[in-house]
This record gives sequence, structure tokens and C-alpha cells, in this order.
Amino acid sequence: MTNATTLTTTLNPAAPTTEPISNGEIFAAHSGGKLTVTSRIPLDSKRNLSIAYTPGVAKVSQAIADTPEDTREYTWAERLVVVVSNGTAVLGLGDIGARASLPVMEGKSALFTEFSGLNSIPLVTESKSIDEIVKMLVMLRPSFGAVNLEDFAAPDCFELERRLIEELDCPVMHDDQHGTAVVSLAALKNATRITGRKLEDNRIVILGVGAAGVAIAKILLNCGVKDVVLVDSRGIVSTDRTDLTPEKQALSTRTNPRGLTGGIDEALTGAHAVIGVSSTTISEASLALMEEGPIVFGLSNPNPEVSPELAARYAAVYATGRSDYPNQINNVLAFPGIFRGALDSGATKITEDMKLAAAQAIADLVGDDVRADYIVPSPLDPRVAEAVAAAVEKSQRDNG
Amino acid sequence: MTNATTLTTTLNPAAPTTEPISNGEIFAAHSGGKLTVTSRIPLDSKRNLSIAYTPGVAKVSQAIADTPEDTREYTWAERLVVVVSNGTAVLGLGDIGARASLPVMEGKSALFTEFSGLNSIPLVTESKSIDEIVKMLVMLRPSFGAVNLEDFAAPDCFELERRLIEELDCPVMHDDQHGTAVVSLAALKNATRITGRKLEDNRIVILGVGAAGVAIAKILLNCGVKDVVLVDSRGIVSTDRTDLTPEKQALSTRTNPRGLTGGIDEALTGAHAVIGVSSTTISEASLALMEEGPIVFGLSNPNPEVSPELAARYAAVYATGRSDYPNQINNVLAFPGIFRGALDSGATKITEDMKLAAAQAIADLVGDDVRADYIVPSPLDPRVAEAVAAAVEKSQRDNG
Repeated sequence: MTNATTLTTTLNPAAPTTEPISNGEIFAAHSGGKLTVTSRIPLDSKRNLSIAYTPGVAKVSQAIADTPEDTREYTWAERLVVVVSNGTAVLGLGDIGARASLPVMEGKSALFTEFSGLNSIPLVTESKSIDEIVKMLVMLRPSFGAVNLEDFAAPDCFELERRLIEELDCPVMHDDQHGTAVVSLAALKNATRITGRKLEDNRIVILGVGAAGVAIAKILLNCGVKDVVLVDSRGIVSTDRTDLTPEKQALSTRTNPRGLTGGIDEALTGAHAVIGVSSTTISEASLALMEEGPIVFGLSNPNPEVSPELAARYAAVYATGRSDYPNQINNVLAFPGIFRGALDSGATKITEDMKLAAAQAIADLVGDDVRADYIVPSPLDPRVAEAVAAAVEKSQRDNG
Repeated sequence: MTNATTLTTTLNPAAPTTEPISNGEIFAAHSGGKLTVTSRIPLDSKRNLSIAYTPGVAKVSQAIADTPEDTREYTWAERLVVVVSNGTAVLGLGDIGARASLPVMEGKSALFTEFSGLNSIPLVTESKSIDEIVKMLVMLRPSFGAVNLEDFAAPDCFELERRLIEELDCPVMHDDQHGTAVVSLAALKNATRITGRKLEDNRIVILGVGAAGVAIAKILLNCGVKDVVLVDSRGIVSTDRTDLTPEKQALSTRTNPRGLTGGIDEALTGAHAVIGVSSTTISEASLALMEEGPIVFGLSNPNPEVSPELAARYAAVYATGRSDYPNQINNVLAFPGIFRGALDSGATKITEDMKLAAAQAIADLVGDDVRADYIVPSPLDPRVAEAVAAAVEKSQRDNG
């Protein structure tokens, strides 16, 4: 087990790994938007026009009219992931609306195209009606091959995902839930190799019970973790609370096995790991209540629940969502490979088994190089999407 | 006036200008689809990830939340044209459905990206409900900057376009109507320079009164053409017919000034020009009824209403929709520049004046080089979109 003293040196919290980025540079990079559509056939001759458009294209349309499955081969649609949002829970900015969410959604589509080789476009709407959004996507089904839901606020995000999975015959995933859960699980698997306690024997506190918190809790329970304690803004989620959403209520019976009541301090006392997805902060006094050498994931962006300085003094393993510190819990480790694998295998659903396989594949890439400051691969590691896609494909082959 | 004899040599109907294209080549070119989305920011460093995605993107989203007009500058959406279809009137293939329409819509989006510099994606739906389609596009409004309606069957296409123009604060155009009308008008302007009769003094027959026929009739009437006769599958459109759609009924009072009744022969007798948008054929006997040296546009694809061989014997000027003969009446001459000009000028509507300006700009590019086999520029002429965009922008400045 790495102790806190060596960790201080490793993390070097005073010196982030990247240079500060000016607003000017950020806005200049966004000028004109971040995505471009291009034709794969150069349209620079009459001959190519006749192939890509009339009259040649009529042959292809007729072929698809005769054999609808040919859509998969001769159009872009079945390998197109739509990134769908209504901008109700954008990053840490909250309900900023569809237009303001666009830079994030374009960024997400850019990540898809760069890391998965799939095409991706953002589709955003101001609508907050689950019925309307479901109907809209069902209407557009022939236009795309998969749906990545993004930055929909809890608790609506749960019903929206459930409904879309039911009504669309293609992969649908709310990345803020499952992408975060998969990468967190991968990171925890390796973090527990460092702290030396089997994953399922850890007492794990999840701070924040929105989209990410709910999904992390579920995936940990599915992995056999016996002691998960959820803390929302009103305290520990327990069966005797009467203010719970359906999702929290369902989780209240499967978590908090010691029947704790109270708030964050009661939850953290004696805990081995804390995963923050809350946009709040954990004080030093609270952190000190945990078992010695805890695992601390402060995933809120840009301000982790536990500062790097504090983590360096207490945590055995520390991870954040930030790109400028080690151990970045970044969904980009998961979603490109998950969608790629699902589409490559012809899956119409993203299953629980696929998510577990994806987490294991991400953890395995670290392998014996695991260290306190290397529990997940770099988001830029080109092996990741490939390994995740292969694991998801295998899951579909074995169970599909 | 060029006579039919010299025209034979010019047209050389026995030798199309391009080599035949095999099905194998067409399908190979379509494999994997025709469009690709790429990121304009390379995502190959932590620094660039931090700029294009978190945490940098939050600054841009916040800026748009504060100043919604910034969407125009910092996202791709306001310069994205969605090509929308329900596949009910695809090329000459008819109602083949949304999936089978995709290759055409991808081709259209490819033409947009290549010729206008705008981004474009296809959105297709199986829905035939105007209400549903309007609602869907209104919901998605923050995702795009303009709507190109494509291959919607008449008469629904008329109401759909009207409703969308009302309900969306961005350019909307049904290209099968107005693109065809603009290019046909441009071609007619130059054709009449060859035949030597002022445009408005021509007796013009339009064969086929679907989307294209209606729009061509309207634009000719707006240009002051005094004698337009429409012929649908039941004969000449006239005020005493009781089987007319609302669009045809409205046109019946503005066309057919000589009160003709009957069919194609009665309409063609003594006519100076015929524009075929009907997917039927005109026999030699019918063609012989026209004034000597007529203008003949056979725009149906792949089989023009009048064959090149027959046209060579009768027509002073002959144009088709095909890329392998001279004088290709191709919408690509119009729509890229029209949308580009509209978006560049910040227009929220595509006006009648813009369409007339676009037609004049296309005609003017031919200039003094006008010949029987050169009445419109080549679809590959890089000056076209630019000239059309400039004319549309000027129209918006002058009238907007």
C-alpha cells in the first residue's frame, strides 16, 4: 500500500501537467464550430457527380428499397451516433439550455469521430418533455444508428433512457450515467489493487446521487460491493427517508447495509473509498474520518470534491475528472469503444454485461504498471477504444 | 436563331460526354456511406482536449448562455443545413421510404458541403404527417441553421414548406420546387436569347404539375410571362376543372389565358417552349405541333420527356437534367449559393426576390458565350455558388 507521504511527491499538486489555457485561445478554437462534414467522394468531375448523385444514386436507393438491411452497408446512418441533449444539466453549469449546450455536444461528437471512428452529430432541443423527445427520436430513427444521451438532468434522464431503450431498436446510452460508472469502476478496480482490499470488501461512499451517482451505485452493486452508502444534499440515502425519487428509493434498499443516518461525516467515518459526483467539497475534517489511506475520487469539474493538496495528505489513491492531474476519470475512455463495439457487433442494446466488460478492459490496459498515479489509461491512449470495443463485441457474441 | 440542322452536330446525341458507369463502381463508392464528420480541432493532446472539451468548453457554453447570439460564432449549428425528407417522392423512384432515400439525401448534403462550404446532414423520417414533421423540426431548431426539404411528394410538400416557413426563424426551401424553378428560369432566360423572343412573350407549356411544375409556373408568372399552360396527367389545367388541388386551382386562374382545353397536343400547338417535369414522354407527332425551333427542356431523369435524337431534329435549344448531355438543368447550380447567401446575410427567409436574383446570377455567368448547347454554366463551375450567394446577399441587403 502506497502511503500518503510518497503520494505527495507523485501527485505534485502544485504543478499541473499542462500550461494554463487562455480564454482567447479557447474562443478562437471554437470560432466557426468544432465539426465539419465532408463528402467521402470528391465531387470534382461529372463522372463522380453521376456516381454520388443522379443518376447513379438511384441504383443504391432502389437496392435499399428492395433490401432494407442494405442501409447498413451503403449509407452512413447505421454508424452515426447522435449526441442528444436538452441542456438541462450541462457540466457544472446546470440548466443552460440547448443552444448553450451545443459546444459541449459538438465536443462530444468530435470525441466520437476521433476516438471511435464512428460519425457523430449533436441534436439538441429545448424540450423538457420526455414524451416529445422520445417521439422525436423515434421519428428520426432511420437517420442514425445509436443515441448518446448527454447532460439531461436527473431524475428525468432515467425515464428518458428507459423509454428510448424500449422504443428504439438501436443502442441507447446516457453517458453521464454509464460512461462515468464504467470508468469509475475501472479506476476502482485498479485503485483497490494498490490499497490491497478486494473491491467487494470496500466500504464505498458515493457523494451525489444524480445521473452519475445512481449509475455508479448500480454498477458497484452489480459487481458485488457489499457496503455502498449514498449521500445526497439531504444526507444519507436510507429506507426511512420519505423524500426519495424512485431511483433513490430503489437504491435505498440495496445500499447502506449498516443502517446509517446523518450526513457526509456519518457516511465517511470508517469508509475505504469516496466517489464524489456532487459539485460540493469535502472538508479536511470530514476526510480525516475515513479509514487511513483511503481511495478518493473527486470527479466534479472543474473543482474536485477534494483538492489535490488535501488529497496528497490523506489519500492513498486520488483521481479527478481533470486532464491536468494524474488519474483522469474521463468518459472518453468508455463511450467511444462501447458504441463502436455495440455497432460493430450489430447489438440493439447496450447491456449491463457490456458495461462490466468495458470496465474490465479499461482496467486491464493498465496491467502491472498500476501505480497510485496510474490507475486508468490516458484518454489519449489509442489502445483504449479498440480494447473496449473488442470486449463489448465479445460480450455481445457470448450473450447476445 | 440557331436552326435545327446546326444543332444536330452540336448536340451529337449519339455520343454522351461521359463513359458509362458500372453498378459495381456505384455501389463501391457508396460503401460506408458518403459523408464523414471530423473534428476541426485535432484531439491529439491533453491541451487540445482541454480546449475542445472540458474544462475549456465550459467557458464557451457559459458565453452562449449569457449571449445567445454567440451560437452563430462559436458553434457549427447556424451554418448547418439539414436535408429533410420522408422519402415519398425520391427521384423517379416514388415513395420508397426514408431509409431508401438516404443515399440521395447524403448526396445532397455532400453537394452542400462541397459547393457552398456550409455543413449539411440528412435527417429522414418515415412520418407522413405534416404536423409531426413540423413539430420535430421546431423541436430541433437549435441544432441547425437552415432546412432544405427534399423529395416530399406533392401536394403535401406545399403545406409542409408553408408551415415550416411560418414556424421556423431560419431559411427553409423545398429544393424540388424552387431549386428547379430557379435553374429552369436561368436556362430559359438564355434560351430565349438564342430563339430571339423576349421571355415574357413566349407561350410556355409546363408538362407535369407536381412540386417542380408548380414552382416553375409561379416563377415564370412572377417574371411576367403572359402565356403559361400547365398540363397534368388529366390534361390542361383550366378553371373549369373540378379535380384540382388547391395549388393547381390557384394557378388555373393565372395560367392558360387562351382558355385551352384538352391534353398535351392542344397545349403544345403553337407553343414556343415546353418544360417537362412529368416522367412521361412527348411523341414526335406532339412535338411537331409546336412553333418551329422550339425550346425543349426534358427534365425527367433518367429519361427526358423528349429524347436527344428527337430534340436534335426539332428543337432550337434542348436541355435535360442529365449530366451526360449539354445544358444540364441541375439544382446544384442554385441551392448551394441560395442557402449560402441567405445564411451569410443573416436572412431568416428565402424570398421570391432572392430566387429571381439567383436565376439572373446563373444566367449572367453564361454571358456572351451563350450558345444552343451552353445556356447554363456547368454544375462544376466554381464561380456559380459564389455568384448566386452574392446575388442573394445583395437581395437581402436591398430588401431585407
